[in-house]
Amino acid sequence: MFSEKICRSLASGSMIRAMFEQGSMLKAKYGEENVYDFALGNPDPEPDKEIIDDIIALADEPGIHKYMSNAGFADVRSTVAAHMSEESGREFTADEIVMVTGAAAGLSVTFHSLLDPGDEVITLAPYFMEYNSYVGNQGGTVKPVNTLPDTFRPDIPAIAAAIGPRTKAIILNSPNNPSGAVYPEEDLEALRDVLDEAEKRTGNPVYVVSDEPYAKIVYDGVKVPSVARIFKNSITVNSFSKSLALPGERIGYIAVNPDLPDKETLEAALVYSNRTLGFVNAPSLFQKVAARHLDRSVGLDAYKERRDMLYEIVTDAGFKCLKPQGAFYLFPKSPIPDDKKFAEIALRHRTIVVAGSGFSYPGYFRLAYCVSRGMIKRSAGAFREIMAEIAGGTEG
Amino acid sequence: MFSEKICRSLASGSMIRAMFEQGSMLKAKYGEENVYDFALGNPDPEPDKEIIDDIIALADEPGIHKYMSNAGFADVRSTVAAHMSEESGREFTADEIVMVTGAAAGLSVTFHSLLDPGDEVITLAPYFMEYNSYVGNQGGTVKPVNTLPDTFRPDIPAIAAAIGPRTKAIILNSPNNPSGAVYPEEDLEALRDVLDEAEKRTGNPVYVVSDEPYAKIVYDGVKVPSVARIFKNSITVNSFSKSLALPGERIGYIAVNPDLPDKETLEAALVYSNRTLGFVNAPSLFQKVAARHLDRSVGLDAYKERRDMLYEIVTDAGFKCLKPQGAFYLFPKSPIPDDKKFAEIALRHRTIVVAGSGFSYPGYFRLAYCVSRGMIKRSAGAFREIMAEIAGGTEG
Repeated sequence: MFSEKICRSLASGSMIRAMFEQGSMLKAKYGEENVYDFALGNPDPEPDKEIIDDIIALADEPGIHKYMSNAGFADVRSTVAAHMSEESGREFTADEIVMVTGAAAGLSVTFHSLLDPGDEVITLAPYFMEYNSYVGNQGGTVKPVNTLPDTFRPDIPAIAAAIGPRTKAIILNSPNNPSGAVYPEEDLEALRDVLDEAEKRTGNPVYVVSDEPYAKIVYDGVKVPSVARIFKNSITVNSFSKSLALPGERIGYIAVNPDLPDKETLEAALVYSNRTLGFVNAPSLFQKVAARHLDRSVGLDAYKERRDMLYEIVTDAGFKCLKPQGAFYLFPKSPIPDDKKFAEIALRHRTIVVAGSGFSYPGYFRLAYCVSRGMIKRSAGAFREIMAEIAGGTEG
Repeated sequence: MFSEKICRSLASGSMIRAMFEQGSMLKAKYGEENVYDFALGNPDPEPDKEIIDDIIALADEPGIHKYMSNAGFADVRSTVAAHMSEESGREFTADEIVMVTGAAAGLSVTFHSLLDPGDEVITLAPYFMEYNSYVGNQGGTVKPVNTLPDTFRPDIPAIAAAIGPRTKAIILNSPNNPSGAVYPEEDLEALRDVLDEAEKRTGNPVYVVSDEPYAKIVYDGVKVPSVARIFKNSITVNSFSKSLALPGERIGYIAVNPDLPDKETLEAALVYSNRTLGFVNAPSLFQKVAARHLDRSVGLDAYKERRDMLYEIVTDAGFKCLKPQGAFYLFPKSPIPDDKKFAEIALRHRTIVVAGSGFSYPGYFRLAYCVSRGMIKRSAGAFREIMAEIAGGTEG
């Protein structure tokens, strides 16, 4: 009766969201404080006072709640362009910026503008599996290429081997969800050489779609290399969900590289797609709010503290884990090969994790540490118990 | 290089938006006060003070900017369900409500959930042509059926004749953009009988998708019949763009009829589509704001005054026009058969209208009167001049 295609997909819902629902049930049963919920990347801190103050200050600005061009407010786009220019060293103008309804919308709009049915998009696993929908909705297919074990760095020769005649784009997501890895500059430069060579061979560019919601969430003085500087065929998609702690408000932007050939056509396609997919324009008040806080990174010190706490708890309990340089996730190795079974064992200890299979990288699991210090502290016993149960072999 | 499909579509951009851009150019050239811009349905009034006060009051409520279930905040969904129950006499619960990023998003999500490639959707012309995208993006096709001339009431026998084996849905939009007609109860009841009979014949329901952004914008004591009451196979899509004067904020809802068979599957499909199309969730702060103002209708008296003013100006100048009962558009008959040519003539008199062809109903043109009283007043001379030029035959 309804869409057969969608009804078939319903069964294979998001593992992250499924664990989120599991968490809600366990909390109702055992009480909030007796459940250790590491499922969802829902920033724990409230937005900074300066952000709230600007929501209030702008609330009654004449015209702020009205329609504007589908690309967004002109002044907001100019401000974002100046910010992108500073970060990349390339000269962005307002024309290169399309304000969008969060990064998910930005990726949907981008792939709607880039892909024809049958086109392929390379992703680097582990990766955020919603990419499959944003690509699949356009009739495209995702071609995952594993990153290197333990470091989660791009496997450049494997990427080179994966490029075929229908490869239209590659998605980069650094700092990475779920691994927390920041791809080093030398890897990106090697990737650029591979893509340049592929373009020479096939005559078709491979566009770099850079999903950067965590660009401002980095630790230990790490600097995230600018993808827009390194790749001229790049489209940057950013969101203020994490940096401003506004995930529910759905606000972000797309920035087309100023040196991308025929960028005007792509820009027109993005604006058209933003309109016809039903987004129409990015939420208006929050366009103006976000433009005032482009350099802000809410809760960074708190995230660092929590990363260190949870990393210590998890490694002390015997888990192997990369110490992440960015984002707010740990991605430890599952002590048993079957990561889904591991997630079930953890659930029995009222600990909610997302299996690595949910990121196309089995054998690992994700812990979102954008949660309260108290919960992280209380979870120490649970991680030890989980490890003890597995060591005891009761679950083989 | 980019999507061929999208690049082909770029040429056929929205006529409404094209006229909006034309208006901006004319204003830059002749000055704002010398251009009569009736192109865009961008509500003129600012939101009521009570709405602004609630934006401010809610801005620092803990958790209000965070992720919630993809369907929206539970309390907001309950409030909307109670409102729908009151309006329809059917018993809606929170499960039947999905908060969405405006009506455009609501329609995209609905058709993504309903359609498979090759399915057909009946629209009643004149209609908002963005429907073509919301249906076409799913591989579906729109089958327009003209309403009756002059009254713009549904042509029931023509609809019955248009229903085929692949007809999945019909879109109703009353009060109608662009005609301003409110479909009378007897027409909807006749349509229900036709759809019931078709379902008996084919075994497949034809879903009624009711796009109701103007439900609260009605005049002269007219009551809009509740589509949710009349049709059990109905999906109501609503938005607060017009009723709360918040079009830039993108906030609305989908309500699945509580008596629709297998509604749970459809509800799950809508939530899944909301997530995977990249909307994720409706903007969070404005979910809470809108829930406090479900019965409000910003600027209704002002719209009525402007309807009366512009109707008088236009009919005095010699145009034939239905006096609209709802929404904020006039849809006069073009004095020459070629409505696109008429729009060009009007442009030369610095008057911006949208040709009826932009609504799949040639021979008419749309005037949005959600504009200032001053502009309406100043436009009287222009409408007389346009008519004089045409009567003079200089444009044949």
